[in-house]
Amino acid sequence: MTGDQRTPVTVIGLGDMGRALAGAFLDGGHPTTVWNRTASRAEALAARGATTAATAAEAVAASPLTVVCLLDHDAVREVLGPVAGDLRGRTLVNLTNGTPRQARENAGWAAEHGADYVDGGIMAVPPMIGRPEALVLYSGSPTAFAAHERTLGALGTATHLGTDPGLAALYDLALLSAMYGMFGGFFHALALTRSEKIPAAEFTPLVVSWLGAMMTSLPEMARAVDSGDHPATGSNLGMQAAAYVNLLDASREQGVATGLVEPMRALLHRGVAAGHGGDDLSRLVELLRTNP
Amino acid sequence: MTGDQRTPVTVIGLGDMGRALAGAFLDGGHPTTVWNRTASRAEALAARGATTAATAAEAVAASPLTVVCLLDHDAVREVLGPVAGDLRGRTLVNLTNGTPRQARENAGWAAEHGADYVDGGIMAVPPMIGRPEALVLYSGSPTAFAAHERTLGALGTATHLGTDPGLAALYDLALLSAMYGMFGGFFHALALTRSEKIPAAEFTPLVVSWLGAMMTSLPEMARAVDSGDHPATGSNLGMQAAAYVNLLDASREQGVATGLVEPMRALLHRGVAAGHGGDDLSRLVELLRTNP
Ligand SMILES: NC(=O)c1ccc[n+]([C@@H]2O[C@H](COP(=O)([O-])OP(=O)(O)OC[C@H]3O[C@@H](n4cnc5c(N)ncnc54)[C@H](OP(=O)(O)O)[C@@H]3O)[C@@H](O)[C@H]2O)c1
Ligand SMILES: NC(=O)c1ccc[n+]([C@@H]2O[C@H](COP(=O)([O-])OP(=O)(O)OC[C@H]3O[C@@H](n4cnc5c(N)ncnc54)[C@H](OP(=O)(O)O)[C@@H]3O)[C@@H](O)[C@H]2O)c1
Repeated sequence: MTGDQRTPVTVIGLGDMGRALAGAFLDGGHPTTVWNRTASRAEALAARGATTAATAAEAVAASPLTVVCLLDHDAVREVLGPVAGDLRGRTLVNLTNGTPRQARENAGWAAEHGADYVDGGIMAVPPMIGRPEALVLYSGSPTAFAAHERTLGALGTATHLGTDPGLAALYDLALLSAMYGMFGGFFHALALTRSEKIPAAEFTPLVVSWLGAMMTSLPEMARAVDSGDHPATGSNLGMQAAAYVNLLDASREQGVATGLVEPMRALLHRGVAAGHGGDDLSRLVELLRTNP
Repeated sequence: MTGDQRTPVTVIGLGDMGRALAGAFLDGGHPTTVWNRTASRAEALAARGATTAATAAEAVAASPLTVVCLLDHDAVREVLGPVAGDLRGRTLVNLTNGTPRQARENAGWAAEHGADYVDGGIMAVPPMIGRPEALVLYSGSPTAFAAHERTLGALGTATHLGTDPGLAALYDLALLSAMYGMFGGFFHALALTRSEKIPAAEFTPLVVSWLGAMMTSLPEMARAVDSGDHPATGSNLGMQAAAYVNLLDASREQGVATGLVEPMRALLHRGVAAGHGGDDLSRLVELLRTNP
């Protein structure tokens, strides 16, 4: 590579996310080769200058760096399994959502075939890709990451978490659990307010400002979790367990399913039963381990 | 009341929240009478100028406005039941957490005894009380609310939602469900990262910025819920159901209990099974009704 020529990149998988990734590489001036099981999904990218490969093997052979973003681990094995030989001497960056175990498995498989492996977790939705607010977490081969850091920077803010290839998946899934917790609570809230015909658009600004206010307590809870010391700071767990019962009762009375909110009731009551009623809510984190 | 003399107020219940409420009335210059089952909790307020009543009846008789903030509905009935006669011609504002049904029941009971009733939900933790960011939601008698709006303003921003006394409790519990969803997701996230010895204080800033970014999608989801139309906007429900399985698998592998996160998996898979895999996540709200 000389002058300001950019590293050629291959993108395998052109779903909503893969198309956004390929688009960001094109925007960054990278010669971009794409492949997708359903070929028609490459058309708009081809019109923007992407090279469409006829096969996954041809796609991998086109660039020193292949970024794969498919539905799941099974799809990755299905597509990449047959082209393992073509990856030799190249770098594979896997941005497919998966578990830490799958990431470690992929890294071992890549090493067997003489390829460098970096796993990644995309903390963004497709419209955010290519902007600094799109955080992409990476882990695995630090040299491969360093070699392609600038190229990967076309997707958003690139952060390398460590050599263990499983770290990015762990962080990714942990962040997703926080997000789905928030979404699930929001959906339950909307089900409750809809039961009284309150428009969601009218109620939601209250949710946004309430969650914004309550989010400011997360760093303090994190400190309590790290220290193992959970003094109540004005809102004791016993009081919260009592109020939570009202949430369950009201949901039943309003004809709203309690499935999403019941587990927190059970956890609060386990906390009280274990003698933590005078502690802060953050104490509950200690009750979530299955093998202490 | 003449000149700039403030309305006398009685506060019944001096737990963490009741003490904050009484303190804010004192700060606002209101002659404040307090009562609590455990008398010692009134001491610091007495030192700041509060009058301590010997009985709940004496407390109610001291002011045209009584604010009650006890643990729960049972405590309210226990404390106020015997003093119903003393409330005649006065206003009772109940800031105890409860259900819409309990609020309506209290309003009926107050009316029987010739008292005005306003129910309320405090969207704040005690340190926020007295500041505009403390939102207190009210519902019930509009005339009683109007008569005491300025006094109640000493606690924070006072908003009247409507004449139905149950509305404040409904909004309150709905907002709490959103908050506990977020906290539960956060706790699960910390349990996951702790399983790899990642300090919570190091991981939490990522959670805060990720939740902040994802929160911006709530208004769009609310519009989808109101319209009944849930087009996917880059993140289809089927893809999310597949990724969510990884969250469950990784939790088991890391020794983290799946109780808090399992219901969302079940809901996502119900959504896919019902043919909504190509829709937006917000479609799930429609699956939460038990009596459609
Ligand atoms: N969209 C987001 O908001 C987002 C955010 C962060 C992370 N992610 C992750 O990014 C990955 C892709 O998500 P997406 O939104 O692009 O999903 P999507 O729009 O549903 O696309 C799925 C992709 O996987 C391919 N695929 C599925 N099964 C396959 C198989 N057996 N063989 C070959 N190809 C197969 C599909 O090919 P066809 O076109 O041929 O069906 C398509 O390219 C997922 O792991 C997801 O968790 C997505
Ligand atoms: N703290 C918060 O962050 C917060 C936020 C919003 C809303 N709230 C709501 O505010 C209310 C009070 O919460 P809190 O934080 O002040 O709780 P708390 O600190 O646990 O205090 C509970 C209060 O209830 C009294 N009480 C309980 N059972 C009683 C009974 N049978 N008879 C008489 N008094 C009884 C206690 O009296 P003793 O002192 O004699 O035990 C104490 O005054 C709850 O409904 C809560 O949901 C609290």
